Amino acid sequence: MAHLVTIGGSDAGISAALRARELDPTTEVTVLVADDYPNFSICGIPYHVSGEVPTIADLAHRTGKDLAAAGLTVLRRTLATSIDATTHTVTVRTPEGTTRVIDYDSLVIGTGATSMVPPIAGLRGEGALGPTDGVHTIRTIDDTRAVVADLDRHPGGRAVIVGAGYIGLEMAEGLVGRGMSVTQVEALPEVLSTVDAELGSLVHAELVRHGVDVHTATTVDRISRDDDGLRLAASGPEGPRTFRADLVVVVVGVRPDTRLAVEAGVPTGAKGALVVDDHLRTALPDVYAAGDCAETHHRLLGTTWLPLGTTAHKQGRIAGANAVGADVTFPGIVGTQVVKVFDLVIARTGLRDHEAGNAGRGWSPLTVATTADDHKRYYPGATPLHLRITGDRTSGRLLGAQLVGQRGAEVAKRVDTYATALFHEMTVAGLSDLDLSYTPPLGAPWDAVQVATQAWEAAARSRTGDQSQVVTTWGTMNRRPTD
Amino acid sequence: MAHLVTIGGSDAGISAALRARELDPTTEVTVLVADDYPNFSICGIPYHVSGEVPTIADLAHRTGKDLAAAGLTVLRRTLATSIDATTHTVTVRTPEGTTRVIDYDSLVIGTGATSMVPPIAGLRGEGALGPTDGVHTIRTIDDTRAVVADLDRHPGGRAVIVGAGYIGLEMAEGLVGRGMSVTQVEALPEVLSTVDAELGSLVHAELVRHGVDVHTATTVDRISRDDDGLRLAASGPEGPRTFRADLVVVVVGVRPDTRLAVEAGVPTGAKGALVVDDHLRTALPDVYAAGDCAETHHRLLGTTWLPLGTTAHKQGRIAGANAVGADVTFPGIVGTQVVKVFDLVIARTGLRDHEAGNAGRGWSPLTVATTADDHKRYYPGATPLHLRITGDRTSGRLLGAQLVGQRGAEVAKRVDTYATALFHEMTVAGLSDLDLSYTPPLGAPWDAVQVATQAWEAAARSRTGDQSQVVTTWGTMNRRPTD
Repeated sequence: MAHLVTIGGSDAGISAALRARELDPTTEVTVLVADDYPNFSICGIPYHVSGEVPTIADLAHRTGKDLAAAGLTVLRRTLATSIDATTHTVTVRTPEGTTRVIDYDSLVIGTGATSMVPPIAGLRGEGALGPTDGVHTIRTIDDTRAVVADLDRHPGGRAVIVGAGYIGLEMAEGLVGRGMSVTQVEALPEVLSTVDAELGSLVHAELVRHGVDVHTATTVDRISRDDDGLRLAASGPEGPRTFRADLVVVVVGVRPDTRLAVEAGVPTGAKGALVVDDHLRTALPDVYAAGDCAETHHRLLGTTWLPLGTTAHKQGRIAGANAVGADVTFPGIVGTQVVKVFDLVIARTGLRDHEAGNAGRGWSPLTVATTADDHKRYYPGATPLHLRITGDRTSGRLLGAQLVGQRGAEVAKRVDTYATALFHEMTVAGLSDLDLSYTPPLGAPWDAVQVATQAWEAAARSRTGDQSQVVTTWGTMNRRPTD
Repeated sequence: MAHLVTIGGSDAGISAALRARELDPTTEVTVLVADDYPNFSICGIPYHVSGEVPTIADLAHRTGKDLAAAGLTVLRRTLATSIDATTHTVTVRTPEGTTRVIDYDSLVIGTGATSMVPPIAGLRGEGALGPTDGVHTIRTIDDTRAVVADLDRHPGGRAVIVGAGYIGLEMAEGLVGRGMSVTQVEALPEVLSTVDAELGSLVHAELVRHGVDVHTATTVDRISRDDDGLRLAASGPEGPRTFRADLVVVVVGVRPDTRLAVEAGVPTGAKGALVVDDHLRTALPDVYAAGDCAETHHRLLGTTWLPLGTTAHKQGRIAGANAVGADVTFPGIVGTQVVKVFDLVIARTGLRDHEAGNAGRGWSPLTVATTADDHKRYYPGATPLHLRITGDRTSGRLLGAQLVGQRGAEVAKRVDTYATALFHEMTVAGLSDLDLSYTPPLGAPWDAVQVATQAWEAAARSRTGDQSQVVTTWGTMNRRPTD
């Protein structure tokens, strides 16, 4: 009976373990979990902070009983401290503080990622501020407990969020929901820099509409404590300024957690993530890596690193299959992402204009912006979708799409049509060939997805190579020439 | 300067006209419209009947001014009475009742479809009941005006709807919304026979929940009038019975309107629709046909007839391009359809089990039913999606998908992912390779779309060829083995 060990009990580790058991129920599977929370949804943390998910245990994708029923042996509070690829063993520290050596036949490393701490004075080195001072990063369930405890200490208090990416924005919504007075500070010129600034500005407005005090192009230089709580010294377009807070959340990104694997001899590549081949094998025999600690194959970009829960599930499933003797290739991602911020939903897939231009694939990108109603305007409740399509002028190939719309406008699943089209390397024009669903309360005869690609086609036809790369065709296109 | 004439000013005719002008702005385009309503949305009629679209003019995709601005000459109340392919002329009856002959260089026939009148005594022949008696079919704007006028005469009255397909169901919702007491009579064993009865039964329950008196497996034999209004004699599982009504709506389907084209020599094929080639050319030189009057290429079934607004737009666009010298092939449809019925949304694409089995392609279909939450259950508001996946056991190819879920659960755009996958002849297993969007309020790391295909995979693995074709895996699959 073969023994599969996974280091990590989050998305990648659990997916690998479950898939291995599904394909070969004779496999013994041990999951090593450093904390007490196997198979918890990291993406759900902001919704516990907000109070929408009242009990932290609800964030578990599966209960301990579910995992046991699937045949997994889950060792909690068990930290892997070293891997010996020669002897096929992992050394762990048990909850009792003792050392134990576990044999494996195959090993899946799913150690995930850790929060980045930016170079802000007061956050690093001797006497660095931390959770007990009201300064938090958000990545683990323990982080979450610390933030919630702090919120309980400061009802209606002042929160400053450093960073305005996915987690930062979700935390802004969550903290507003908890009744906090929220300031959001972002070093880049616009919030949500994973989409074009024209779309980020819509998110910015949504934050402001809900009372968030947003400061972009503003860098926090120092965080300190005094009698009035926390003090953030920042510099921005208005010059130096100070923010006061009872609670600071620092969410400026993550980096792959690779220490253990690197010490065992696994090389690192893109952004410091573990190098894996197309079967998610590392350079060590019988050792796989999956999820946020590992490199990712992006179907448009090649090898990259992009920590996403969906990718962790996919990679874990494939690593788990290969670990029990299957021969499955990771097909790669196209970078599909979605976030809800108050009443807006923002999604993207594929590449943006500059990403396509810098991809080294010889693409000559054109990006065209369009607005289109989410459904026939005559039916009550139509709202505008803001779409941006990026395609290659030369080949006509679809390279990426970005969408912003109201919650309820099916933004999240509209981006999936683009994602599926990208997977199949469709042209922009080819989208008009897709037989998409239509009923007046939910769409249009040419769905907004296609209105946007037809606008791209029209713009591409009418433009020559030396003109600006970005064309904006505001207007209610789905009432106009192609409806 | 070439002259394109379209016979018909609904989806196909207008799409052809607009596309011709878009590709060749020198083309002169004349659109012949039999009634007074060019470019009206037939699919929107139930929402005017319901009162949700207060003004009938709002049902126009574009105004007369929009059409003129696009360079179209629209001749209203102008009925084409004959086509002479030899002389390249169309003879019309003008609004003044005179005859006029119009030359064309190319012609697009978009005459659409007409309501079927079922073999019910009282509806056919001498003294047949009609709109002035309170008996209506629903296809044109004039039909719509007659129904609305009748509703105004019978506020809170009794309506019987004969038929429970898309329009029948939308009319049920609309008439309930108008405060009518609604009875729905369907000859088939379940409502919405375009999806499996297990899903149709959910729609049935939704109708009942909203006060519709639903009678399935019930045939109306005779409709007559007496002092108490209309009387429908029917027979069903309970034996003979009588329904009383102030208003009867007969919506049992449509047939292609081909008389004009047939008289001109265009052959008919599937379900009596006009035969067209892959460029949407008829057998007559320079004469195209598009939309509900024409055959359709279905990518899984081959040549068929399936009257849908989306197809009419697609075919019109391609016929219009070819009419001005382009060389574009109609890529075919996959039969994607969606309907909202009260708070439910029902969608399908591709083939159902029996359709796949009867397709003559050697498929050995397996259909697997799954329920999955539309988004992570820990986030408030999760609702179950009911999915049925049909695939070929031998090749693993995806053949079709059916979905039912609550409005707001992104059913309409989830079916589009399956539609795009069908377009590309993906396997069921291949759906797990798609990089679909995820955020806890709107999805799951494996979207419900993929939970359903993974359930199909598991069922296909565990079953042999001689077992039942349909497997039901109710349960909260997206919390279980693949989450």
